Amino acid sequence: MQNKTFSIAVLGAGNIGSSVLTRLKELDHNVLNLELKRVLVNDTSKDRGVSKDLLTDNFDDILNDDSIDLVIEVLGGVDPGKEYIKSLLQKGKAVITANKDIIADCGQELITLAEENNTCLYFEAAVAAGIPVLKPLIESLRGEELTKVLGIINGTSNYILTSMEEGSTYEDALSTAQELGYAEPDPTNDVEGVDAKYKAMILSLLCFGVSPESDAVFTEGISNITKEDFDWASRLDKTIKLVAQIDSNENGFNARVHPVLIDKKHPLAAIRGALNAVVAEGENIDQLVFSGPGAGANPTASAIMGDVLSACHQLNSDQSNWYPLREYKGENKSFEDVESSMFIRLSVNDEPGVLAKIAGTFGENNVSIESVIQEGRGDKAELVLVTHEAPEKDLSNSINQISSLDAVTTVTSLLRVYV
Amino acid sequence: MQNKTFSIAVLGAGNIGSSVLTRLKELDHNVLNLELKRVLVNDTSKDRGVSKDLLTDNFDDILNDDSIDLVIEVLGGVDPGKEYIKSLLQKGKAVITANKDIIADCGQELITLAEENNTCLYFEAAVAAGIPVLKPLIESLRGEELTKVLGIINGTSNYILTSMEEGSTYEDALSTAQELGYAEPDPTNDVEGVDAKYKAMILSLLCFGVSPESDAVFTEGISNITKEDFDWASRLDKTIKLVAQIDSNENGFNARVHPVLIDKKHPLAAIRGALNAVVAEGENIDQLVFSGPGAGANPTASAIMGDVLSACHQLNSDQSNWYPLREYKGENKSFEDVESSMFIRLSVNDEPGVLAKIAGTFGENNVSIESVIQEGRGDKAELVLVTHEAPEKDLSNSINQISSLDAVTTVTSLLRVYV
Repeated sequence: MQNKTFSIAVLGAGNIGSSVLTRLKELDHNVLNLELKRVLVNDTSKDRGVSKDLLTDNFDDILNDDSIDLVIEVLGGVDPGKEYIKSLLQKGKAVITANKDIIADCGQELITLAEENNTCLYFEAAVAAGIPVLKPLIESLRGEELTKVLGIINGTSNYILTSMEEGSTYEDALSTAQELGYAEPDPTNDVEGVDAKYKAMILSLLCFGVSPESDAVFTEGISNITKEDFDWASRLDKTIKLVAQIDSNENGFNARVHPVLIDKKHPLAAIRGALNAVVAEGENIDQLVFSGPGAGANPTASAIMGDVLSACHQLNSDQSNWYPLREYKGENKSFEDVESSMFIRLSVNDEPGVLAKIAGTFGENNVSIESVIQEGRGDKAELVLVTHEAPEKDLSNSINQISSLDAVTTVTSLLRVYV
Repeated sequence: MQNKTFSIAVLGAGNIGSSVLTRLKELDHNVLNLELKRVLVNDTSKDRGVSKDLLTDNFDDILNDDSIDLVIEVLGGVDPGKEYIKSLLQKGKAVITANKDIIADCGQELITLAEENNTCLYFEAAVAAGIPVLKPLIESLRGEELTKVLGIINGTSNYILTSMEEGSTYEDALSTAQELGYAEPDPTNDVEGVDAKYKAMILSLLCFGVSPESDAVFTEGISNITKEDFDWASRLDKTIKLVAQIDSNENGFNARVHPVLIDKKHPLAAIRGALNAVVAEGENIDQLVFSGPGAGANPTASAIMGDVLSACHQLNSDQSNWYPLREYKGENKSFEDVESSMFIRLSVNDEPGVLAKIAGTFGENNVSIESVIQEGRGDKAELVLVTHEAPEKDLSNSINQISSLDAVTTVTSLLRVYV
C-alpha cells in the first residue's frame, strides 16, 4: 500500500468537496501516496485551491481516464451522481460517496455492481458522518445476528430537541440552529424526519438485509413538540429524542422514525446538541453504542478519508470490499402492527364519567392503560395517559374515537414511549 | 470469499475457546465457509464438543499442516502463546488472538512479522472485548491525528466503582463482583490497574505509534477509594472512574492509568457496571465514543468471529491486513511532567494558621489552589482542596511537605480530577 501511488478524482467541490481536497493535500505520504488527477466542477474558471489543469466540467474526462483508480462523489442530490457512480463501478473504478440519498435509493444495486466488477464502494459518511459505524456494522459485526438498531442520526433535530430540553421553544431553537448553520433555511427534511429516514433505510440494508420502500418507513418529525411535552418528560424522568428504530425479531422487521419519550438513563438520552449516535443490539454483543459528530464538513471529510484508505488497501487485492450482505428471511411488518406504548395528553371538560368513557374506549380496542394523571379542574382540566404496548392500529383507532368524544376538547400531544 | 473454504485451527479450549468453538459450529455458510481442522488442548481425552480426531496436544500438528489458513490463539498468558504466534506468522498463517498480555508485550514485533510474511494478525478482543473499536481506530481513523484516547477498559473495576457510587463499600462491591464472576479470587490485576495498563499500551501503539515500557505507564488502582470519596464526588457533581488516558500533543506523549474524579456530564461517567468505553479525540473528529460489553466469553468470541471474517476476506488478497502503523515523532513525557489537577482531603487540627501553612506550601511549589472547603471543627476538622493543573512532581512535593506538617494528621485521599 505504501509503495504504490493511487490516482484519484473528486466529483464536486462544494462545502464537503473543498474539505476533502484540503485533506487530500495534507495527506501524510507515509500513510498513502495519492495523486489527484481530476476535479469535476460546474464552473472551471473558479478557484478551487488546486491547479486549474485538474478542473473539468466533463464527467467523461474522469470516466474514460484509465489511470484513475478511485473516485470520490460529493455532488449532493441523486442526479447525476447516481448514474455517474454506476458508470464508474462498471469501469471497475473504486467509488466513495457521502451521498445518503443515492445509497438509500439504490444501495443494494450499487453494492452488487461493485461486487460484480471486483471493485470497491464505500459510503461511511452517508450515516452519522464522522462516526466510523458502518464499517464495524458490516465487517466486524457481520457474524452477529442483530435484533435492534437504534439511532439519533439527524444532528439538526437533536440540536433543536436539546435546546428545548434546556428551556427553549421550538421556534427559538430552530432559528438559532439556522443562525449556526445546523439547519437549512427550509428545515423540512431535518425536522420532519426525512433525512433520518434515508439513513434508517441504509442501516436496514446493512444491518438486516432489508431495503424497505421509502413509503414503508413510518416517519414523524419533531415540529409539533412543545415545551410542555418536555416538562412532562422531565416529570417521568425521561427526555424526548428523534429516533430511527429498526427491529428484527420473530415478529418480523420494521423500520421507523419518530420522536420518543426515552428514559434519562438510556445511552441515547445523553446524546446532546448536534451529536449523533447509533446503538446496535444482539444476543452476543448485548448493546454497543457509537457516538460522535453527525454532520459538518470536517467530520464528513474524515469519514471519506477513512474510506479512501480502506479502498486503497483493498484495491491491491483485486476483489470487492463487500462481505456478503445480510439476507433477511422473515417478514416485513407494517407499521400498524408495530407495538408501541403511547403518551397522550388530552384537554377535557372535567365532568363525571369522562375518564370512564376514555378508559372504556381504550378497553374496547384492547389497549391497556399504564397510568393516568389528571391536572387542573373544570374546563381547563388535562388528562395525561400512558398506555401499555399495543399495536399501532389499535392505538390509532382508540385515539380517533376518543378525540370525537364530547368531553374531549383537544388531543394536545401524542408521543411514543421507548420501552 | 463465499466460494472458498478456509481451514482453521484453535489453540486452547477454555472458557473463551469453548465459546469460539460454538460460534464456529453455528457460522452461517452464506457468510463464510470454514472447516475446523485442529484444536490444541492439554488433555485430548476430555470432551470439547468437537470430534476427538480434531484434538491434539502437539502444536507442530498445526504449525506444519500447510492446509491450515488461519489460527485462533486463546490459550491465555504470555507463554507459550507468544512463540506459537511468531512461528505461525512466519509460516504465513493468519493469526487471531484475544491475548492482551502478548500484544502489550510485543505487538509491534508481531505486526511487523505479519507484514513481512504478507499475512494477517488481528486482536480486536484484546481491548474492550466485544466493542469493535480497534478496527475503526487503525483503519477508518488512520488518516486522523489523534490528540487523546481515554478509556474505561477494565470491567471489573468499573463494576466495583459503580456499586460504590450506588452506596456499597469497596469490600462489599468486590465480594459481589467475585460472586458474579466479574472478579478473580485474586483481583489484583483488575483493581490495581494492571489489566487496564496492558490495554493502554496496546492503544498507545495503535493510536499514537508509541510502545511505552510497562514501567513507564503510571498505574494506580482503585483499592484505596472510599464511600466518602464518592460522597465528595457527588457534591462536586462528579463521579469516580478508573481511566486509562493517553495524551499526545505539542508537550509530548504520556500514557497512564489512574482513578479520576470526572464530571457527570462526561460520556465516561455514564458507563456503568461491567461496561467498557473508549473515547478518541482529534481535531477533525472532535470526540468519538465507542461503548459496550468489555468482558465475558460471548462478547470476546464475537470480536474473534469479526476478526475471522476480516482475516478470510483479507486472505484472498495475499497481503497483510495492516495499514502503516502510526509513527510518533515527538517526545515521551515522564509522568512527573504531566499536569494534573488534584483533589486532596486532609485531616487537620483546626488551629489558627493551618490553612496559611498549607497554602504556603503549595505556593512554594508553584501549585495554585482552585478551591478549599473546611468541614468540622477542632481535631475532627477536614480540609478539602482542589488544585489547578500543575506538574505531578510539584504536586507530589507539595503533598509530601504538607503531610509532614504538625497540624496535618492524615492525608485521607488523593484523587486526580479529569479536566
